[in-house]
Amino acid sequence: MAATSATLDTVAALAGVSRQTVSNALHHPDRLKAATRDRVLDAVRRSGYRPSLPARQLATRRAHAIAVRADPQQDGISGLVLDTFFHGLAEAGHDNGLRVVLYPAQATQEEEVALVDDLLHSRAADAVVLTATSATDERPTYLAATGQTFCAFGRPWGHADAPHDWVDVDGAAGTTLAVNHALERGCRRIAFLGWPDDGATGADRRRGWAEALDAAGVPGPRREDAAVNFAEGAEAAARRLLDLPAGERPDAIVCVSDTLAFGAHRAAATSPAAGDPPLVIGFDATPVARALGLPSVAQPIREAAHACLDLLVPRLAGEDPPARGVLLAPSLALPSH
Amino acid sequence: MAATSATLDTVAALAGVSRQTVSNALHHPDRLKAATRDRVLDAVRRSGYRPSLPARQLATRRAHAIAVRADPQQDGISGLVLDTFFHGLAEAGHDNGLRVVLYPAQATQEEEVALVDDLLHSRAADAVVLTATSATDERPTYLAATGQTFCAFGRPWGHADAPHDWVDVDGAAGTTLAVNHALERGCRRIAFLGWPDDGATGADRRRGWAEALDAAGVPGPRREDAAVNFAEGAEAAARRLLDLPAGERPDAIVCVSDTLAFGAHRAAATSPAAGDPPLVIGFDATPVARALGLPSVAQPIREAAHACLDLLVPRLAGEDPPARGVLLAPSLALPSH
Repeated sequence: MAATSATLDTVAALAGVSRQTVSNALHHPDRLKAATRDRVLDAVRRSGYRPSLPARQLATRRAHAIAVRADPQQDGISGLVLDTFFHGLAEAGHDNGLRVVLYPAQATQEEEVALVDDLLHSRAADAVVLTATSATDERPTYLAATGQTFCAFGRPWGHADAPHDWVDVDGAAGTTLAVNHALERGCRRIAFLGWPDDGATGADRRRGWAEALDAAGVPGPRREDAAVNFAEGAEAAARRLLDLPAGERPDAIVCVSDTLAFGAHRAAATSPAAGDPPLVIGFDATPVARALGLPSVAQPIREAAHACLDLLVPRLAGEDPPARGVLLAPSLALPSH
Repeated sequence: MAATSATLDTVAALAGVSRQTVSNALHHPDRLKAATRDRVLDAVRRSGYRPSLPARQLATRRAHAIAVRADPQQDGISGLVLDTFFHGLAEAGHDNGLRVVLYPAQATQEEEVALVDDLLHSRAADAVVLTATSATDERPTYLAATGQTFCAFGRPWGHADAPHDWVDVDGAAGTTLAVNHALERGCRRIAFLGWPDDGATGADRRRGWAEALDAAGVPGPRREDAAVNFAEGAEAAARRLLDLPAGERPDAIVCVSDTLAFGAHRAAATSPAAGDPPLVIGFDATPVARALGLPSVAQPIREAAHACLDLLVPRLAGEDPPARGVLLAPSLALPSH
């Protein structure tokens, strides 16, 4: 490890230049001749001098950090998605000289916006990555109106013309993959187990299911049910589907999440109906889907995190990113057994 | 939202004091009379002035931040533990005016130490919370030697007299709970499925199993096997245990992790042996254990995160924390079905 006691004066003395020249070499290299700059930077290396981040922040008027929300665990099954997202952000941030600052989830959107506002205005962060966007989300509207730099992981639901950057995974494409897999396996009565209509992520995944059935020209009634994201409610909802008369009982259930798939799997395992249990397909490819041997739609979460940085880095430099919105394609993860 | 254009001068004019007095009210309140300080702070509130964090950092020579590592997902089953830990840190940090900065996992300990060193010396963070400590961990030794402020989530394995702060969960107490649960359920041949000997977390959990069997006075051979943290190896290891002759075949398998329990569960489900399948007990109470209906040892992760802050906050104020090490008690989570 290099010595850590070197100061700006140490470097200046070593390079035979003024403190201001050292500062310029670090913060405004274009102001110096190449030879001078190289001599100073060489002295920086030899001295082991490390510029203080707060000083650099003051000089550049930048925090060199982005903020993202840390959520409490709910039922936990899909929590890993965020975990992977955090690592991807930390990785991509590090590559771009940006730290990732976690802020704790708040009780209301209003409190969250106030907290984010404080982080940005106090220059604890230069930009924020919003997660878990919804159709009634007021956070993007507020941040855009106040000219803040941000990127949403999630489309601008309900604000199709919203002037902000976003990255998302194509949920409808995911449930289409699920339906097509069920069709290939010979299923014909493919039901959907969704969330109560949210006009956003859940509605998009439902649309992929309905459109895939349309495209395949599968006749007969389409069944669906809904539950909030807890396995118990999902089990009851799936049981309602499986209690339908034999000719209407689903032979596959495409689920909006692995939590709901877990409930559907339990309902299928204990269903008194004769014949093969229905094929249950989940969403998020969590370890739970793997443990239960269920196919599940996999989101490219690490890529999504990198895509957020690809949008934010140019924005922070005052430039337009290559695209305003980035929609990534999911895949279908099949069980290994 | 308050206006954001207020400056130190706005506040000074509003309070009828000098800029220096405003600065003192914010950073050195003890230097002012109470009445003056209150008048300035009232003006700060009325003006909507928000001190810049970098300026405050320079004034206090503190980053007002702690750093913690973001790991890539391995198999993912136990990843939620970290997710919960992050949220707990963000929550407890927020309560203490400390932000949580994520740094990406590095390929080697040496690179990680260099990165942490850089974060601390550049004042991007005041302290670090080390995760995933091991018996061959050189990070605490280095950080202690260089006088850095840190806390380990994990005991100072192999450095019993190590002069640093730590928080951990009592793993041996966890596997003792698991063994006692198996005994209550009538099991008598209780095997252990562990990690290859690591002299640390895994060895501690194995010790709890062995000591609980000693305490109960259970006769007969004790069987154990090991696998690294992948379900496939665990399934093979569990199969070796279940292929033992009838009188030696385990009727319970206490596992060092839910990943290994997942493998053991698969081996038990496909075992050709007659009779009841063995009781499999996991560790970490992840959604996978819940999905498979396995009992599992639950670690108080949120409490551990808060305990880390309870150690770091006094350290950062130059004071000794109430204890050098904090060992938290786990519980046993039973399946709901």
